[in-house]
Amino acid sequence: MQVPASDLVATAHTTSRIEALTDGVFAIVLTLVVFDIRAPLGPPEQLGASLLALWPRFLVYAISFLQLGIYWAGHRSQFNFIVREDHVLRWISLLFLALVALIPFSTQLLANYIDERLALGIYAANFIALGLVLALHWAHATRHSRLVEAGLPAAVKATGFRRCLAAPLLYAAAFIFSTVSPVAAIVLYGLVPACYIFPALIDRLGRVYEG
Amino acid sequence: MQVPASDLVATAHTTSRIEALTDGVFAIVLTLVVFDIRAPLGPPEQLGASLLALWPRFLVYAISFLQLGIYWAGHRSQFNFIVREDHVLRWISLLFLALVALIPFSTQLLANYIDERLALGIYAANFIALGLVLALHWAHATRHSRLVEAGLPAAVKATGFRRCLAAPLLYAAAFIFSTVSPVAAIVLYGLVPACYIFPALIDRLGRVYEG
Amino acid sequence: MQVPASDLVATAHTTSRIEALTDGVFAIVLTLVVFDIRAPLGPPEQLGASLLALWPRFLVYAISFLQLGIYWAGHRSQFNFIVREDHVLRWISLLFLALVALIPFSTQLLANYIDERLALGIYAANFIALGLVLALHWAHATRHSRLVEAGLPAAVKATGFRRCLAAPLLYAAAFIFSTVSPVAAIVLYGLVPACYIFPALIDRLGRVYEG
Amino acid sequence: MQVPASDLVATAHTTSRIEALTDGVFAIVLTLVVFDIRAPLGPPEQLGASLLALWPRFLVYAISFLQLGIYWAGHRSQFNFIVREDHVLRWISLLFLALVALIPFSTQLLANYIDERLALGIYAANFIALGLVLALHWAHATRHSRLVEAGLPAAVKATGFRRCLAAPLLYAAAFIFSTVSPVAAIVLYGLVPACYIFPALIDRLGRVYEG
Repeated sequence: MQVPASDLVATAHTTSRIEALTDGVFAIVLTLVVFDIRAPLGPPEQLGASLLALWPRFLVYAISFLQLGIYWAGHRSQFNFIVREDHVLRWISLLFLALVALIPFSTQLLANYIDERLALGIYAANFIALGLVLALHWAHATRHSRLVEAGLPAAVKATGFRRCLAAPLLYAAAFIFSTVSPVAAIVLYGLVPACYIFPALIDRLGRVYEG
Repeated sequence: MQVPASDLVATAHTTSRIEALTDGVFAIVLTLVVFDIRAPLGPPEQLGASLLALWPRFLVYAISFLQLGIYWAGHRSQFNFIVREDHVLRWISLLFLALVALIPFSTQLLANYIDERLALGIYAANFIALGLVLALHWAHATRHSRLVEAGLPAAVKATGFRRCLAAPLLYAAAFIFSTVSPVAAIVLYGLVPACYIFPALIDRLGRVYEG
Repeated sequence: MQVPASDLVATAHTTSRIEALTDGVFAIVLTLVVFDIRAPLGPPEQLGASLLALWPRFLVYAISFLQLGIYWAGHRSQFNFIVREDHVLRWISLLFLALVALIPFSTQLLANYIDERLALGIYAANFIALGLVLALHWAHATRHSRLVEAGLPAAVKATGFRRCLAAPLLYAAAFIFSTVSPVAAIVLYGLVPACYIFPALIDRLGRVYEG
Repeated sequence: MQVPASDLVATAHTTSRIEALTDGVFAIVLTLVVFDIRAPLGPPEQLGASLLALWPRFLVYAISFLQLGIYWAGHRSQFNFIVREDHVLRWISLLFLALVALIPFSTQLLANYIDERLALGIYAANFIALGLVLALHWAHATRHSRLVEAGLPAAVKATGFRRCLAAPLLYAAAFIFSTVSPVAAIVLYGLVPACYIFPALIDRLGRVYEG
């Protein structure tokens, strides 16, 4: 029996290992973004001042943590629907992970240069790229129901796609505000994860307490 | 068929990935708190003295390791009862992980300033916040049996809730003792994990050898 | 009943834990190769120049990331066919992981000395060794269908084996070009992962859009 | 219905999460022991010499990697037989992981002071403690078939126990040789993992080619 050479690598029957690798990379990156904040070492009488001086780091790391949480939840949600993987999906996921692995770098860069437009732009670009790759991941999986159940409603496909693109658009808009002021850009960056976390939260609390 | 937009992110059918992410973050944080202790590099004749000088680090890291072990076991035990997850639970878990990721920072801070009240307070505050978020996690999951089996006895719910709150209360009490002496506070911090480990141990050994 | 002493360690019924350990090591190494690129810290007016000066690091880290992705996918693909593990397979996997754990070192070495033949050779040697060990892993598992389904076609066995050996051959050839120029060697190193990613991609896109 | 308070934490139905945490910690520690070897940074003409000067690090890290592999395989093998976990087993596992997390420290210490008896002793002590805790883990699980299948033969129990104790005895013996010469001790440390890897390998190859 002749087996096409491409099948050995190109086919795979379950998605469990790409999910395991993704969870591993996110676990490490979520930990490392915070691990970059080193405890002060100076004389005790300056401890309070040294800790206060760390505020830009804590702020930027908090935004990165939340945004990574959103993308982790987004990637995870896609796998509620994706029932098999293929070679292309695996490489889109690896590209996604490569961009996730760059977040500690962009975060550290922005924490070091909190009011430089170049640092603000690289930070936004990293998260924009993550959102676009996540949209590509969903588009590849759902087009012609390639890797999802055949009956998945078009509305679910479209909703998933719009959500992946919302964050990149918001980051791009927020970056444009950095011409007005770097502080405005950072505040807007912080609002992007909030848009994802709270609407659904309010939505759900509403449903729980109303009906 | 129209699918509500919130369903794509808000529903999830199993808890396996939030558990995998949690195990990953704990695995890294448990390793990094200890990895912060760097081996001495000075001349060989000072090696013994250099190692002895590391005792505050080993002490604080041991307390952090034990306490993290308790919170890991606590989070894990909740998932013996939680049978599904929702958007809110996932974000409470992510907040929990964000606080776990801060432990290497608070641990390093206390190891650097072992008799400063500010460092003692931040360390206690980090673990208090972890306990409160774990209590919130349990309360969200069990209220109206939202994410647990419908028949889960109220006593299990109440016990779980009390356990989550015990450590925060003990840490707050221990921190108050730091006005008396920083050493007293650290000894009491070390007793918090012991309260969790040994009663149940003795309890179980008792049952094994008695009946 | 007498149990042979060697059975306790030598037998194992599933491959799930070696896969979990592998995913964990890859997740960490994929993150650490990039984590080695530290954000600049100098005066803001030099930020652009400092970032541009990081290009050799980004280039080498990108090649390492892609190549690690290929080997991860290769190891993972083998476990689509390997249905049980034994003591020898576990140790070949551990040897594979030991070589994976060396990649951040070789990558950093090449990024530090991007036009030194010694660094180019160590980098190539690390990836060559990985490919050879992966070939050994497959050969051990498939010989006499030791750890795979009895009916696995010989063509699948041969294809898997050839794929494991292709990358080592390409790296060895690329290294030989480093006598011509170090830049040529690096360009060729970058083409090795491309050979694995794009043929199958084009192949698959072809099949999807043609019929 | 009254539920005993100790049940909430003390009972657990599967061993999958302690295994996941263990795999995570081992994955990180296996990577970090090697990550401690930093690539040289000096002038290119000294690169060869700088790399050669790293040999004690590579040697000690290789021994640690192999020995960690053995303990990982040992812990993993126990879970081929352990079918449920309890509070005590979980804490013995956490103690085991605490000692695993110390290995990068002891390894770095020995690499820094390769011919100091104090460093040799701490390194041996760390691995001896790991072996003893693994023996305790097995003893707890198998005593009165507490956490294993009721019919597990006594020979399997005894074999598992002896294997856990073999490495500590070999390390203690090897350390005694350090009075003769530190080099002798390191050579003997390197033979401990070899004792575990090769007998079974030869054993198995023998069986494969003979029958």
